Amino acid sequence: MRQFLDEDFMLSNKTASRLYHAYADVKKVPIIDYHCHIPVEEIWEDKKFRNMTELWLSADHYKWRQMRVCGIPEKYITGDGSDYEKFEAFASIMPKLLGNPLYHWSHLELKRYFGIKETLGPDTAEEIWNRCNEILSDSSFSARGLIKRSNVALICTTDDPLDDLHCHEKLAEDTTFDTVVLPAFRPDEVLALYKHSWNSYIDKLAAAAEVEIDSIDALLEALEKRIDYFVARGCKVSDHGLFDARFEACTQAEAEAIFQKCRRGENATVMDCKQFDSYMLIKLAKMYHDRDMVMQLHFGVVRDTNTMAFMKMGINTGFDSMHNETYTRPLLKLLDAMNVGEGLPKTILYSLNPIDNAAIDCVIGCFAEEGIKGKIQHGSAWWFNDHMEGMESQLKSYAALSTLGNHIGMLTDSRSLLSYTRHEYFRRILCNYIGSYVENGMYPEEDRYLEEMIRGISFENANTYFGFGLE
Amino acid sequence: MRQFLDEDFMLSNKTASRLYHAYADVKKVPIIDYHCHIPVEEIWEDKKFRNMTELWLSADHYKWRQMRVCGIPEKYITGDGSDYEKFEAFASIMPKLLGNPLYHWSHLELKRYFGIKETLGPDTAEEIWNRCNEILSDSSFSARGLIKRSNVALICTTDDPLDDLHCHEKLAEDTTFDTVVLPAFRPDEVLALYKHSWNSYIDKLAAAAEVEIDSIDALLEALEKRIDYFVARGCKVSDHGLFDARFEACTQAEAEAIFQKCRRGENATVMDCKQFDSYMLIKLAKMYHDRDMVMQLHFGVVRDTNTMAFMKMGINTGFDSMHNETYTRPLLKLLDAMNVGEGLPKTILYSLNPIDNAAIDCVIGCFAEEGIKGKIQHGSAWWFNDHMEGMESQLKSYAALSTLGNHIGMLTDSRSLLSYTRHEYFRRILCNYIGSYVENGMYPEEDRYLEEMIRGISFENANTYFGFGLE
Amino acid sequence: MRQFLDEDFMLSNKTASRLYHAYADVKKVPIIDYHCHIPVEEIWEDKKFRNMTELWLSADHYKWRQMRVCGIPEKYITGDGSDYEKFEAFASIMPKLLGNPLYHWSHLELKRYFGIKETLGPDTAEEIWNRCNEILSDSSFSARGLIKRSNVALICTTDDPLDDLHCHEKLAEDTTFDTVVLPAFRPDEVLALYKHSWNSYIDKLAAAAEVEIDSIDALLEALEKRIDYFVARGCKVSDHGLFDARFEACTQAEAEAIFQKCRRGENATVMDCKQFDSYMLIKLAKMYHDRDMVMQLHFGVVRDTNTMAFMKMGINTGFDSMHNETYTRPLLKLLDAMNVGEGLPKTILYSLNPIDNAAIDCVIGCFAEEGIKGKIQHGSAWWFNDHMEGMESQLKSYAALSTLGNHIGMLTDSRSLLSYTRHEYFRRILCNYIGSYVENGMYPEEDRYLEEMIRGISFENANTYFGFGLE
Repeated sequence: MRQFLDEDFMLSNKTASRLYHAYADVKKVPIIDYHCHIPVEEIWEDKKFRNMTELWLSADHYKWRQMRVCGIPEKYITGDGSDYEKFEAFASIMPKLLGNPLYHWSHLELKRYFGIKETLGPDTAEEIWNRCNEILSDSSFSARGLIKRSNVALICTTDDPLDDLHCHEKLAEDTTFDTVVLPAFRPDEVLALYKHSWNSYIDKLAAAAEVEIDSIDALLEALEKRIDYFVARGCKVSDHGLFDARFEACTQAEAEAIFQKCRRGENATVMDCKQFDSYMLIKLAKMYHDRDMVMQLHFGVVRDTNTMAFMKMGINTGFDSMHNETYTRPLLKLLDAMNVGEGLPKTILYSLNPIDNAAIDCVIGCFAEEGIKGKIQHGSAWWFNDHMEGMESQLKSYAALSTLGNHIGMLTDSRSLLSYTRHEYFRRILCNYIGSYVENGMYPEEDRYLEEMIRGISFENANTYFGFGLE
Repeated sequence: MRQFLDEDFMLSNKTASRLYHAYADVKKVPIIDYHCHIPVEEIWEDKKFRNMTELWLSADHYKWRQMRVCGIPEKYITGDGSDYEKFEAFASIMPKLLGNPLYHWSHLELKRYFGIKETLGPDTAEEIWNRCNEILSDSSFSARGLIKRSNVALICTTDDPLDDLHCHEKLAEDTTFDTVVLPAFRPDEVLALYKHSWNSYIDKLAAAAEVEIDSIDALLEALEKRIDYFVARGCKVSDHGLFDARFEACTQAEAEAIFQKCRRGENATVMDCKQFDSYMLIKLAKMYHDRDMVMQLHFGVVRDTNTMAFMKMGINTGFDSMHNETYTRPLLKLLDAMNVGEGLPKTILYSLNPIDNAAIDCVIGCFAEEGIKGKIQHGSAWWFNDHMEGMESQLKSYAALSTLGNHIGMLTDSRSLLSYTRHEYFRRILCNYIGSYVENGMYPEEDRYLEEMIRGISFENANTYFGFGLE
Repeated sequence: MRQFLDEDFMLSNKTASRLYHAYADVKKVPIIDYHCHIPVEEIWEDKKFRNMTELWLSADHYKWRQMRVCGIPEKYITGDGSDYEKFEAFASIMPKLLGNPLYHWSHLELKRYFGIKETLGPDTAEEIWNRCNEILSDSSFSARGLIKRSNVALICTTDDPLDDLHCHEKLAEDTTFDTVVLPAFRPDEVLALYKHSWNSYIDKLAAAAEVEIDSIDALLEALEKRIDYFVARGCKVSDHGLFDARFEACTQAEAEAIFQKCRRGENATVMDCKQFDSYMLIKLAKMYHDRDMVMQLHFGVVRDTNTMAFMKMGINTGFDSMHNETYTRPLLKLLDAMNVGEGLPKTILYSLNPIDNAAIDCVIGCFAEEGIKGKIQHGSAWWFNDHMEGMESQLKSYAALSTLGNHIGMLTDSRSLLSYTRHEYFRRILCNYIGSYVENGMYPEEDRYLEEMIRGISFENANTYFGFGLE
C-alpha cells in the first residue's frame, strides 16, 4: 500500500523515482510555462488574495463543472453564496472525484503551497479553510510570491493584438522580479468573421496599428505591425483557437471580396469563413515563420453548448465540449499550403479529443526542417485530456509515432497561479513512463541519455524550440 | 499464478479484494437491473427450461456470432441440429475465446448457478451438459428461481407503447415474488418513419390510446396517454434505439406536414426522418421530464449488415456492427434544444463505439441540474463494449472527465436470466480499478468515502436516480 | 530491473516466458510472411550488400522520417552524404527514440543478425558499423542467407498484374532454396482512374493479357487472365491499397460509361472514381472467391502530404499520414454487396488509424462462412500501428470482439530483409498478453489449448487460411 501523495507520488518503481528526483524535480529544474491565461495585470500589480475561494475557486471552470454535475446549486458556485459556503461546497464533492485530475491537482496545490497533508472533504473543509487563509494572508503569498515559490523561469501570457503590453514592458524593466514574462499573440478576433463584433474589432485594430484597413492587404499590414510590436516586446509565440482544423483554397481576389463584403456589414457564409480562415492563417504563418515565432493551433472544441447557461453566464464558464469530427486531410492541406509558400513556422498542434492522438502524431511527422528538433509538435495533453491516463496515453502515442526526445514538455493553460503543480504532475507521469520502460527492460539504463531526455522534455527543449535563451 | 475464477477473480490486489467483498459482493448488495430485454411473460409464467441449450444458447446472438466466426455450420447454431449438438458446438469454440467476455460470462454462469468448476471445452462438454441439465430439472431453476438466486431487487423490462402490461400488473399483485418488475417505455416504432410498417403501427397506437391520430398533436396526445398508462404501472424509464444521434430543427408546421405526408402513404425523405426524429424526441423528452422519468438514448449501431443473413434469419441474429460516424455536435444541439424548452429529463447516453467515450463524458458535463447527482449519465459499457478492457477504459474516462461517485452502475441489456453475473463482473472491475488506485497511492485509503462510492455505484445511485424507492 | 533485450524481452512474467519459448520461438516455429514488399529480384539474384547503410538505411522510410523529425539534413538521409555519415546520423538519434518501435526493431536486428549487444548511439556508431560490415562481407549474409537465418518458410511478395513473374518461376524451380516465394496480385493501377497514367497502364495490361480492352467486360477479362496467370504460379492472395473504404452502387452500364469516358481521355469525377472502385472491387472479389484466394484491403492512408518533398523525392519517402475519416457504413455495404453476389472471398481488412480497431473487429464478425475459421480477418497492426502499444491494443480489441484463436498472425509489410524480427516482436507481445492473462487468473493454465492457440497464431492459422499447404 503506497501512501497518497508521498514523495514518490505516481512513481511506481525505483527507476521512475530515481529519474524524477534526479532530473525532473520542479524544485531543481525550473518551469517554462509557454502557454497560460494568467492576466498579466495580476503579476504586474502583484495581486493579493483575500481567501482560498478568491484564489482557488473564483475563476476555475473545471471545478465549477464538477460541482454542477454533483447537483450543487449555482449559488454556491458562481452565485451570491459566501466565500466559505463555496469552499465548503467544493470540499463536499472532493471525495467523489476519484480518478479526476481535480482530485490530484487540488491536493497537490494544498500540499505544495500550504503544507496541508489531510485530504479535503466535508469533515476537513473548515480546518483547511482556516489554515490556508492564514497562510495566504502572508504577503509572500501574492501573485509574484506564488510564481517565485513555483520556480518558474518564464511565462507566456495570452494577449490580444490590440493590447499595448504596458504590463509586459514594466515587468521587463522591473529588476526585483526574476521570472521572464512574455506576451503571446492571439488574433482570434481577427478571424472571427462570423461574429457581430468583427467590424468594430477591425476598426480598433486599425487604430492600434495606425493603418487604414480598407483592403485585405491593409488588414495584413496592420497585423504585421502588431506582430512586430509584440516581437519587440519579447513575443516568441502566437496562438489560435480555431473554429476547427479546416481548409478551403482561397485566392487573393476571393479574400478581398470576402473582406469587402463583411466590411460592408453583410453576413459571411460558412464557405466565406473557411476561405478567410485559410487565407489569413497562411499569411499569418508566413509572418510568424519570418520572425522565427512558434505558431500554436488549437482545435476540436464545441463552445457554449448550453444556451441557457450561456445567456446567464457567458463564455468560459464550464459548458464546453470536445467534438469528434474529421479533420486530418484539411489540416494536412493547410500545413502543406503554408509549407509550399515557404512560410510554415514551427507549429504546435492541439486537439481536444484524445482519439486524434495517433493522427496528429502522424501529421507532425510529415513536415520537418533541417536543423530543427521536432519542428511540428503535438501539444501536451490539453484541457479535457490533462489527466493521468490522458497524459500517459498521449506520451506513449507520441513516442511510438514520433521521437520522444524532441518533446517540448508541459504548459498550464491555466488562469490560476497555483496550477504550476501541473508541471510536477506531468513530469512525474513522464518519469514514471520512462522509468517503468527501463525497469521492464524495454530501454537500457543509460543515464547519459535518460538525463538528457528528461531534462530536455522538462526544460531544455522548450528553451531551445522557442528561442527563450534561458540559462 | 492466480487460479482462474477464484474468489478474487479480477481483483488484482488486497485492497481491491477487500473492497469488493465488503461493499460490492452481489450476495450482499442486491442488483438493480434497470435495462434488460427479458420477456416479462417468462417471469410471470415462471418459465422452466428443458435443458442448457434452451436456457443458454437459444436466444444469445453473442454466442451465435462467435460460433459462426469459427466456421460452425448454422445447423448447430440456429438450425435443426439437436440441442446437445448445439451445446457441443459451442463448447468446441470456448477454448479459443481467450480475451472475449463470453469466456468469462459463460464460466461465471456455469459456476454461480450450476457449481461447475471445470472449464468448458470439447472434452468436458458432455459431463457439463449432463450435470447442468440435472440441476436445471429442479423446479427452483425456473425464471423466478433464477432471479431470486441472483439477488435481484428490481428489473426494468423493455416494452412497446402498445403493450397492455398485464404481466406487470399481475406481478405487482403477486406477493410470492419479491423482485420488483417495472415496464420501460420504448417507442422506437413511432419514430421509424422509414419503415413500411409505420402507418399500421400508428393505427394500432390509436386503438391502444383511444385517440384518433389525425395530426401530429394527436400523435403526441396518444403517446402521452400511453406514457401515463405506463407510469401508472410503475414505469420510471424510457428507452430509444436511435437511428443515430442527429438533429435537424423542425417547426410544428413542418412536423405536421411530414406526418400528413407519411400518413397518406408517401415515402419520407432522409431529411423528413431527421426532422421528425428531432421534433418527436424533444416533445417526448418534455413528457418524460414532467413525470420525472429517465430517458435512455442508444446510438452508434448499424443493424442487419448482412443482407443474406437478414433475409434468412431476420433482425437481432448477430449481424450488427458499430459505426464510426461523427455525432457530437448534433447530439449537443438535441440536448440543448430540450434544455431550452425546460424539458430535458435525466438522460443516459449510450454509444456503441468506444472511441466516443471521451466525447460523451464531455457532453454529459454540459447539462446539469441543481439537486441532481449526475443528471446526464454515460450508460455502462454497452454490447460490443461490455468486456473487461471496455468497462475499465470507460470507467477511467468517466472518472477523469466527470465525477465517478455519481455513476449509476451496471445493467444486463440481456435476454438471458443468467446474465446477472454481468453485474458481478462489472463490480469486480470497478473494485479492481478503485482498489488498484488506492494501492498505488493515487487516492487515500479512506473507507468512509470508498464504501459510499462503491455501494453507491453498485446500488444506491441507481435507486435514487430512477426514484425506485428500494430499501 | 530487467536487462534490455534479454531472452525474456517483453515477456513480463514466467508464464509469458514459458509460452513464448515453448510454442512461439522463431528459431523453432517458422515464419510465414504473407505480405511484404521485398523485390523478388533481390531474392532471385541473391543480392549482397556493400555495407549496413545499403542493407539497413537505403530503403527504410520509417528511419528517414524520424531522422528528419530530429532535424538531420537530407544530405545524410537520402542525399549525397557518405554511407558512414548516414549510418552515424541515424545512430545519433537512436537514444531519443525511447518508445518508438525503431528502437526495438533496430536493436533486435543488430543482435539477432550481427550479435551486437551494445546499444547503438553516437558513441558506439563507429564500432558497430565496422563489426556489422565485417560480418556482412561474409557471403552467407546475402538475401537468401538472411532469409534462411530467419527461419522463413514462405514469403508472398507484392506484384503488379503486368509482371511476368519470371523470378518467381525460377525460384520455384531452384531446389537449392527451401523458402517458398509466391507472388501477390496487386492491381492498384487498374483502379487508379484519377491518375494520368491510367490509360497507358490499361494499354500495357491489354498487351500483357493479350486482350483488346475496349469495354469494361474486356477489362475484366484481361484481369481474369492475369489472375489465372498469377494463380498458376502459386498466387494465393491479392492486395488492394484503396483510396479509401467507400462504396457507391454502380450498374454495368454506368461502369461501361465511366470506362469509355476515361479511355477517351476525359477526366473522371470523384463520383466516377467511387463507382468504378466499387464495381471493379466487387467483380475482382468474385474472381478471388472463385479461386479460393484471399483479398487484402488496406485503407486509411493520406499519401504524399508534403508537396515540396513529393516534388523532390516522389512517393514512399516518409511523408504519409493516417486520416480519421468515417468509413464503416460504406465498408459494410461493399462487403455485403460482394456477399450478396456470392463472391465475398476470405478478406483481410487493414486500417491505418488505430481508432478503427473496434469498428473493424465488429465488421469482421458480420460475415462468416461455414467451415472457415475467421473468414474475415483484421490484419495485424499495420505501419504506424506496429509498435508495442499498437499491437497489444489491437490484439486485446480483436480478442474481446472476435475469437483470438482464429487470428492469422503477423506479416512484415517491409522492404527490408532484416524485418523478420518483427515476427519475433509480435510473438513476444502475443505471448506476453496471453501469459499475463493466465498469470492473473483470467484464463486457466491449460496448455493443450494455449499451445494450439499460440502455434496457431504464429504459423498454423495462416497456413490453413491461405491454403499454403506447408508442413
